[in-house]
Formats: sequence, structure tokens, C-alpha cells
Amino acid sequence: MSTRWMSDPARLTVEDARRAAGERQNTLTKPPGSLGRLEQVAVQLAALLGVERPTLERLRVVVFAGDHGVYAEGVAPFPQTVTVEMIRNFSSGGAAISVLARALGADLEVVNVGTVGDPGELDGVVDARVGPGTSNLAQMPAMTSEQLVTAIQCGYEAARRSAVAGCDLLICGEMGIANTTAAAALGCALTGASPVDMVGPGTGLDPAGVQHKVRVVERALDLHAGGLLDPLEAMRRVGGYEIAALAGCLVRAAQLGVPVVVDGFIVTAAALVAVRVNPSVREWLLFGHRSKEPGHVRLLEALDAEPLLDLGMRLGEGSGAALAALLLRAAVQLHDEMATFASADVSQS
Amino acid sequence: MSTRWMSDPARLTVEDARRAAGERQNTLTKPPGSLGRLEQVAVQLAALLGVERPTLERLRVVVFAGDHGVYAEGVAPFPQTVTVEMIRNFSSGGAAISVLARALGADLEVVNVGTVGDPGELDGVVDARVGPGTSNLAQMPAMTSEQLVTAIQCGYEAARRSAVAGCDLLICGEMGIANTTAAAALGCALTGASPVDMVGPGTGLDPAGVQHKVRVVERALDLHAGGLLDPLEAMRRVGGYEIAALAGCLVRAAQLGVPVVVDGFIVTAAALVAVRVNPSVREWLLFGHRSKEPGHVRLLEALDAEPLLDLGMRLGEGSGAALAALLLRAAVQLHDEMATFASADVSQS
Repeated sequence: MSTRWMSDPARLTVEDARRAAGERQNTLTKPPGSLGRLEQVAVQLAALLGVERPTLERLRVVVFAGDHGVYAEGVAPFPQTVTVEMIRNFSSGGAAISVLARALGADLEVVNVGTVGDPGELDGVVDARVGPGTSNLAQMPAMTSEQLVTAIQCGYEAARRSAVAGCDLLICGEMGIANTTAAAALGCALTGASPVDMVGPGTGLDPAGVQHKVRVVERALDLHAGGLLDPLEAMRRVGGYEIAALAGCLVRAAQLGVPVVVDGFIVTAAALVAVRVNPSVREWLLFGHRSKEPGHVRLLEALDAEPLLDLGMRLGEGSGAALAALLLRAAVQLHDEMATFASADVSQS
Repeated sequence: MSTRWMSDPARLTVEDARRAAGERQNTLTKPPGSLGRLEQVAVQLAALLGVERPTLERLRVVVFAGDHGVYAEGVAPFPQTVTVEMIRNFSSGGAAISVLARALGADLEVVNVGTVGDPGELDGVVDARVGPGTSNLAQMPAMTSEQLVTAIQCGYEAARRSAVAGCDLLICGEMGIANTTAAAALGCALTGASPVDMVGPGTGLDPAGVQHKVRVVERALDLHAGGLLDPLEAMRRVGGYEIAALAGCLVRAAQLGVPVVVDGFIVTAAALVAVRVNPSVREWLLFGHRSKEPGHVRLLEALDAEPLLDLGMRLGEGSGAALAALLLRAAVQLHDEMATFASADVSQS
């Protein structure tokens, strides 16, 4: 295994389909541009899916889960066992993303990239544990080089399964107690932002807890100062298994021609790694929502991304991306099903 | 007929249901508050619908359509015949709101409150024409007192039909060439804003067209200066049939206990009339989206309203409200279907 494949170009967009879709938008019975972002995403999806009138029938949600050694620094208010407990909850249908996947009629796949505990065999959960959580990034690199490559490969395989399943749109999410700490450290490494601007309350730290988390991230950035310039090396040092898997999944999905809806803070950190490694991936990413986690806006800026939703959400799991998929599906339905001025005999301006 | 009924109080919210729903939210398997606005609207809908775990199965869209005498001032780029043509398009299923109603599984009712032309008998269209368009508000009151009352009554009847149909949530929209001019004049009258801050391009005026429209609104406000303090009298003078019907519909829906999703600029102007006439209506209104029409933000401020979506849309028809209804339905599904910490055996912080 290596990560050389990550540099292979993303599938080319179909510019004829983009042009035809753009022209079609201007024939539909509405003032041109009046559906705003919905028009833009319909045209983008036409270019990505290679047809003038795309559909989003087969949706798939993939949630990557893993544990974090940096949990030992006291950066999260929930016990670490919650990662495994939530994997069970995903499987039994009680988590937010389970409900949203049902509402979308989407397949839900959970990839366990490395929890501390063993959740046992579960429906819809792929056991791909690289290790029992990462190492503590405040004291050493989170992953060995081999672990990094294995975790990225987990994402590659998930993207491959999505393409084989004929997925029109992939919704990517994550779960992992303490993973906002890893994502914040990685975000600082990739953007040069200061930890005070990138670190937030995560699942619910109080202000003193956030201050402590800032210091942990500062310490990690000092420790790894020499190894943060290369995005993959930065991810190895201060990322996490599920973040690495997400980066691999996003790159591979783009190579296989599967558009991806990026969720919140953690997935966006992975997206930034993916795009830094391979800029051609960017076109294949749609951004679901702006998280309440304060650092998210910095990562979005670095990706020149404007999410569809801003609902004050900060749950992860792919929940914001899944909600945005409701809008994306409506956008292509409008694009496909609306009458034209000619067909409906409506006068134009 | 009179409008005295408009002062009758809205149905009381069920505070026990609100409390129970709020408590339930904090037991669901997510960090408290992490679903942001979705949690707030689920709790609000519980209070409105009077049950701890509400559902939004039976949705209904009502689009009020009418023509405007002020069209003669050259304030709209589309020909006036488009109002009737679009009513036909609503009925035959080709308009944006037709597509969105299908996507929601919602009933779609169109109420023709007064087009210039006669669209003929059409499926799903109620012929309730008060007159062949309003009078030119830049030269005289848009409506007589009798016309105003009749138009408001059209909204009363539409709300009644919605309640009889057992509707859980009503999505209100409008269609009417030149109706952003009427809504802008009404918005100025109600908020004291200046026409330059309230007038926008509507369906697509160029900057010179917007300047002209500003002058038309200024002229109307001067002409009617003595009669703009009372919200109903202001609506009679510078509103329109569909705006009056919307105001009546919103008030009556609130009295009958049907929550309403308010759409964009025009519906919000009607909502402001409704709430000024009867402040108890406010609680029953959810705000779907922030329109690209620049004056919308002023109307939203006057209603202390924060819409769910901001997608640069400016189509009307109820399209933004219908999209928001996708999110509202997801919010109540999450509220209803998510596991609790206890039921899923997930540890708490």
C-alpha cells in the first residue's frame, strides 16, 4: 500500500452537460437566477454526473469512526466509550444520522477505523480498525506512517464500495470523541491560523475547557513544528484515523466520479488535506452546512467554500451534509421537472 | 363580511407539550443543543401542534395570485399575462412550487384572488377573483374597502379549508406580476423604511428599472401619506388582493391552530400586517428563507424573524417556504425517532 494514487486526477467534469444544464435553467418557468444556489448546484451536479438532467436517487452516507489518544489530555466532556456506543446506535437506527439516512432513503455505512473498544459485529458497520485509537498527538505523532496509509486506504475502500453501489451522491460524516481537538490542530497546521481561532467547545466544553484545549493544541503544534508543512505528514502527526480515512475517501470518490457532500468541522479538515494533496478533488465537493464550531469558517475560507445551510448545528455524523442533501435533491428535481417557458406557454421578459 | 374576526386571539400554544419536547431533546443521543435550529423548531412545533412528538405528515401549499394596477407604471420586466399563465402552470404541475409540493407529498391549492384575465377552470385552482387586478396604487387606493374585506375573506376561507383537510403545516406563497412594488410600498408604510432600502429588482429589473420603481413607490407613499398608519388601511391603499388574502389566511390559520411557513418578501409583508393587526399570530409563523430581494431583511427585522434558509432565492410561489418545510419535517423526524441516552445505552457527559 502507498498513497501515490492520491495524486491521480479526479474524474473530468462533463462541460457539455454543464453548458446544457445552464441553458436549460434559463428556459425554466422562473425569472433567470431566481432559484439562487439551487440553480448553481443543479448545474454543478450536471457537470459532475455527466448528464444535463441529473437525478439523486441513490444516496449513500458513510460515517467514519475512531478514537483519539489525545482524549487523555481531558479535551472532551463525554467519556471515550461513547464512540463505540454511538457506533452501536448508528447500527440500531437511533442516531441522528440514522434518522436522516432513512428520511433520505439512503444507505448508511459505518466504518470503524479504530475505536479503543470492540463494538462487536454489527449490521452496517465495517470493522476496519487500524489500532485501538490513535496515539496522544500532544505527546507523539498520532499515527505511524503505516497506520496513516492503512487509515487512508479504509477511505479508498469506502469510496470504491460507494461507486460499486452506483451511488449518485455520497454524504460523509464522522464520529470520534476528542476529534475536534485533532481537527483543530490539523486546521492550524494547514491554514496557519492560531489555536485560539480554531479551537471550540466541540461536544460542549465550558470556556475553561476550551482554554485548556487551546493549550493542548498549542503544545501539539510546538511538538510537531518541524513536520506540519506537508499535509499528509501533518495529518499523520496531529490528525486521526477517521480524518485520514475521510481524506482518502474524498480523493477516491472524486477519482471515481462520485460527488461528495462535506459535513462540518472535522470532515472539512479532511477535505482541506484532500484538496491540498490533490486540488482536482475540490470540484467534486459540495459543502453541506456551516458548523457552530468556530474554526469551521477558517477551513471553509481555505477551501473557498460556501455551505448551503447555517443552522447552528455541531453534531457531526454527517448530519448537516444529510440535511443539505434534501436541498440538493430538491434542486435536481426542480431542474428536471419544471416546465419550460415554451412547454407551458408562459411569456418571457 | 367584516374584518373584526382578525382580532380574535390565535390558538393558545400547549406549554406542557413545549416543556415535554424540550426535556425530550435533552435525552436524545447527541450533545445538548447540537442540532441547533432543528431543536428549536421541533420544540416550537410541539407547542403549536400540542403534542410532545409532533409529526408533519399532512402538508399543504396555498398560493394566492392576483394582478396589480401599478403594473401600468412599468415596474416589472415580465408581461402582466404571466400571472394567469403561471396559474395554469401551477395547475398543470410545471412550476417550481408544483415540483416542490410533489417532493413534499403536499396538497397544492391555488387561489386566484384577482387576475386581469380569466385562466378558465383549472384543477386545484379556486376562482375567487375580487376584481380584474387592483387599481394603480400610484394614482389611487389599490382597493376599495369592500374589495379589501373580500380579499381578506379569501384568505380566511383558504385557512379554513386547510384546517378541515387536517393540515399539520401550511406553506404560503404568492404570484402576481408587479407585487414586489406593492409589498415594498406596504413595507415602507409599516416599518418607516425609505423606498431606496425597501425596493429591489423583483423578477429582474436592471438598476435603472429599480430607480424608477423607487420613484413610483415614493409617489405612492406621498399620495397616501394620510392613510398609512393603520395596517389594514395601508394594505388597502398600497397592497394587493393576494397580499390581503395572505394576511387573512395567516391570521385565520393561527386562530385555527395551523402553523404556517412564511415564504419571502411578499408573504412577509402580509405577515407583518397580520401581526400588527393581531400580535398573537406571530407565534404561529415560521420563516422559511431570506429572499435576495433587499427589502426582505427589513421586514424580517420588524417581525424579529430569523429564517431557516438563505439560498439567494427570489422566486416566490412559496418555493423558499416549501424547501424549509423539508428541514422542518426532518427536525420533527429527528425529534421523534432518535434514541435516548437511556434506550441506546450511550453514556452522558
